[in-house]
Amino acid sequence: MQNLRMTIQYDGTKYDGWQRQGNTKNTIQEKIETVISRITGEEIELNGSGRTDAGVHALGQVANFKTDSEYDEEYMLKEINRYLPKDIRLLDLKKEDIRFHSRLNAKRKTYIYRIDNTDFGSVFDRRYAMRFNERLDVKAMKEAAAFYVGEHDFKSFCTKKSMKKSTVRRIYSVDITKNNGIIEIIYCGNGFLYNMVRILTGTLIDVGRGRINPWDIADIIEARDRGRAGFTAEPEGLFLKSVEY
Amino acid sequence: MQNLRMTIQYDGTKYDGWQRQGNTKNTIQEKIETVISRITGEEIELNGSGRTDAGVHALGQVANFKTDSEYDEEYMLKEINRYLPKDIRLLDLKKEDIRFHSRLNAKRKTYIYRIDNTDFGSVFDRRYAMRFNERLDVKAMKEAAAFYVGEHDFKSFCTKKSMKKSTVRRIYSVDITKNNGIIEIIYCGNGFLYNMVRILTGTLIDVGRGRINPWDIADIIEARDRGRAGFTAEPEGLFLKSVEY
Repeated sequence: MQNLRMTIQYDGTKYDGWQRQGNTKNTIQEKIETVISRITGEEIELNGSGRTDAGVHALGQVANFKTDSEYDEEYMLKEINRYLPKDIRLLDLKKEDIRFHSRLNAKRKTYIYRIDNTDFGSVFDRRYAMRFNERLDVKAMKEAAAFYVGEHDFKSFCTKKSMKKSTVRRIYSVDITKNNGIIEIIYCGNGFLYNMVRILTGTLIDVGRGRINPWDIADIIEARDRGRAGFTAEPEGLFLKSVEY
Repeated sequence: MQNLRMTIQYDGTKYDGWQRQGNTKNTIQEKIETVISRITGEEIELNGSGRTDAGVHALGQVANFKTDSEYDEEYMLKEINRYLPKDIRLLDLKKEDIRFHSRLNAKRKTYIYRIDNTDFGSVFDRRYAMRFNERLDVKAMKEAAAFYVGEHDFKSFCTKKSMKKSTVRRIYSVDITKNNGIIEIIYCGNGFLYNMVRILTGTLIDVGRGRINPWDIADIIEARDRGRAGFTAEPEGLFLKSVEY
């Protein structure tokens, strides 16, 4: 029995998110499981580091699975990529300690949210950024983002669906840059609740357009009330960048 | 009568190239002409700085047209972008001297060719780079590219279809970089023949994979024979970056 760990890149545009679900066959987890099961002849179950929603992308999702197959990793990596659709790629595949679990052992995650704030919408960012055509005040967004950093109860920034017991998370940093009209927000934290990055971003956009004052963020966190935060930003702007262990 | 000049960005994936053609309605020129004709109520004819082939992209194509319409440029720019498909955008629209012609007055053009030379193919570059999975020797490609620079008869690098009288062109520079497995070749010259950038690139790829010796490029140019140069690289890797006047 060996435990193999992979890094995965995917364009989430066409998919119903990461996680396998009852009725659909259109999740990224299922696509990869199907290919590996065919290669190994076993029924494979992938542990992902966490879900990504429908339409969300990944530059470096991490997952692991156990197998009795004795193919070497390099051969298997090539075979898996050969049969995967072109919008899903394994970047690597490595042997891990048998106890390694990509979700339970994750220490730190980084997400990037991209906003297309150009005058008329960038042709090449249609699928890879949320289009927002009112001009955003990036300085105010940076002021607001500073309030996110630290350990807080993020209940205001979480869709009810979440079954997590605790809504306390630590955000290590939020960095915001703007280049050629594309705003990138990079979030780094020890974990994120369901829809949390998209709600944090929607709230920053509401700050950037003047609907929320940056100094109100502390109150919004304090309230522990989803109704106080901003909207849930669109999935196509979100990328899971990396997971650290 | 006024003469208006525009800079255009497009994702060429779905289109039959820039230039209006007999039977098709699916060229970028036609999409823009149709929108402007509807706004002005005139029959509009666009002069592009040059054609781009089916599937080729533009970051800064330039075109101009004459109109008796008296709308101001800012209003017209917004209206045109409102009715264009999202994979075609005007970046600006400005009054020019009545004698300005975007093709005849072009002094210098810059193209970028992108090659996806990653191990398994980058998910996000599928439409915006040519996939090439044998590892390319970038140092040899740079040596070969140095022979392109200068004024030469580029007949070996031109598809016969070209009706241009002279096949002499001057290339000012060819810069090659590689980042995360994506090779970018930036060509700057006073003009390029039909398919020339794609054949220059296919030849560099043949050098990078060891089929052509970098030192043979001088001979290949000298031969004035299309059969001596490399293959015509795929359209999806090519971007018209800018046109200078």
